[in-house]
Amino acid sequence: MAILVVGSVAFDSLETPSGKRERVLGGAATHFALAASFFTDVRVVGVVGEDFLPEHEAVLTAKGVDTKGIERAPGLSFHWTGSYLKDLNAADTLATDLNVFAAFEPKIPAAYLDSEYLFLANIDPVLQLQVRKQMPNVKMVAGDTMNYWIAAHREKLLPVLRELDVLLINDGEARMLTGKSNGKRAAEGVIALGPKAVVVKHGEYGATIYGNGQTFRSPALPLDEVVDPTGAGDSFAGGFYGYIASQPELTPEVLRRAMFYGSVMGSFACERFGTERLQATTRAEIDERFAALKAISHL
Amino acid sequence: MAILVVGSVAFDSLETPSGKRERVLGGAATHFALAASFFTDVRVVGVVGEDFLPEHEAVLTAKGVDTKGIERAPGLSFHWTGSYLKDLNAADTLATDLNVFAAFEPKIPAAYLDSEYLFLANIDPVLQLQVRKQMPNVKMVAGDTMNYWIAAHREKLLPVLRELDVLLINDGEARMLTGKSNGKRAAEGVIALGPKAVVVKHGEYGATIYGNGQTFRSPALPLDEVVDPTGAGDSFAGGFYGYIASQPELTPEVLRRAMFYGSVMGSFACERFGTERLQATTRAEIDERFAALKAISHL
Repeated sequence: MAILVVGSVAFDSLETPSGKRERVLGGAATHFALAASFFTDVRVVGVVGEDFLPEHEAVLTAKGVDTKGIERAPGLSFHWTGSYLKDLNAADTLATDLNVFAAFEPKIPAAYLDSEYLFLANIDPVLQLQVRKQMPNVKMVAGDTMNYWIAAHREKLLPVLRELDVLLINDGEARMLTGKSNGKRAAEGVIALGPKAVVVKHGEYGATIYGNGQTFRSPALPLDEVVDPTGAGDSFAGGFYGYIASQPELTPEVLRRAMFYGSVMGSFACERFGTERLQATTRAEIDERFAALKAISHL
Repeated sequence: MAILVVGSVAFDSLETPSGKRERVLGGAATHFALAASFFTDVRVVGVVGEDFLPEHEAVLTAKGVDTKGIERAPGLSFHWTGSYLKDLNAADTLATDLNVFAAFEPKIPAAYLDSEYLFLANIDPVLQLQVRKQMPNVKMVAGDTMNYWIAAHREKLLPVLRELDVLLINDGEARMLTGKSNGKRAAEGVIALGPKAVVVKHGEYGATIYGNGQTFRSPALPLDEVVDPTGAGDSFAGGFYGYIASQPELTPEVLRRAMFYGSVMGSFACERFGTERLQATTRAEIDERFAALKAISHL
């Protein structure tokens, strides 16, 4: 069943220990949509500028992603410049040029209103809430956020949390959101704020889901080289949520397997710059990596 | 089959967010021996001072640990003072009083010479090597070390690494030892230095073993409260190695299960100060926690 994702479609300029790239296609919605496209239909709502060319759109449409909801606006697309030279686990933001994203007001095409799964990627929580209200009948809502909204706009974020079936965040964000340094207590604290479940991502160590009556840890696959971690979290979310949307029912087993698919898609995302690796991924590789993850974690 | 462990038997003065304790029984060999005692016979070689009383020895002998190899010397036992107030994942050493440990020269009782498993806990690598040479016929040798020896005495450590079947260290130590920041590359770098396998501990996220033809990640159990992480790594090693020593053959499956038993014993160690929790642990609790670890990691 179809997922509607609302978030950024952007360009990233990146430097990592593996090299440098200028203005490659990125954005949370882009990484999410590509990862989820292997599992289910994906529809994107976002905004881009005049620098978003047919070749960029083709990256998404080649995977069957529906791009009708990507609005064109005069000016340039959102552009993020970041460096991982100091620490591969923590991006150092060098510049954030919001450009057309500054005035983004998500408009949901009529053809998207029957989407059963909604993913609110990391954008202004006020917009996340607006989108949620426009989609009252979805079967499930998942979402992401970041330290900026937690620290500076908590009061805007809290109503969004109450709307979520699953929040996906990282360790640092869970601690910032709850003030609890213990990982389990932080997760319980997040759930107390509203989400039925929380997926806490631990970077190279994997991720843990708490809630819905179970705790489950998926390992991350040890990689030979992390070329570019940008979008790894969004790709995790895409694999996780895409698999859930592809299944008839959300059983505990589906949730566990979704965690593995999240790890699988996150691992691909890191292996090359931008969306390069996700573009090249095949379904057979996904199955192979799922099996590898099982082999390194099952007795 | 019997494990011989050589290492510190000491007193620790600790402060953590959960409280303070003065001069509680500790030391790497103590934590290791208690954890391993649930699986197999354990013999300890170490040195203590006049402050090591019958009540302290009874903590070990109550679990069937053979303490004949613990030498008594005039003066005080090794005393470590540390704080985890800043960071539960990294001890801040406030004082290291070596006392009788400064002149420690491990002497292996004749009755210990038939031990089939040798564990070289974290002590001066020169002593680790001396012990290894006195036990030429052991079936397996595992060991630990720490940042101090890696940074300041690398040339003394390298010959020890070449003697090891398994080295157990944490992420930071693996990176320091190899100069590689990528976790997988660091593990491969450690193996290139001699050990047939390396267990890299990731604190609250679990541990990964590389080598012997497989990679396997054991999760750590999310704990409600980490009261005192002192000795968690040694307890992991005790569970891991104790289980291996209890099995007739070192198969890949035994190695995977050993990783789980390591996580189980490490999790107990954190739940109270010093050796309190390991003293109170029952075999039924170990089995229960092993099952819990499986439940949070298996599809």
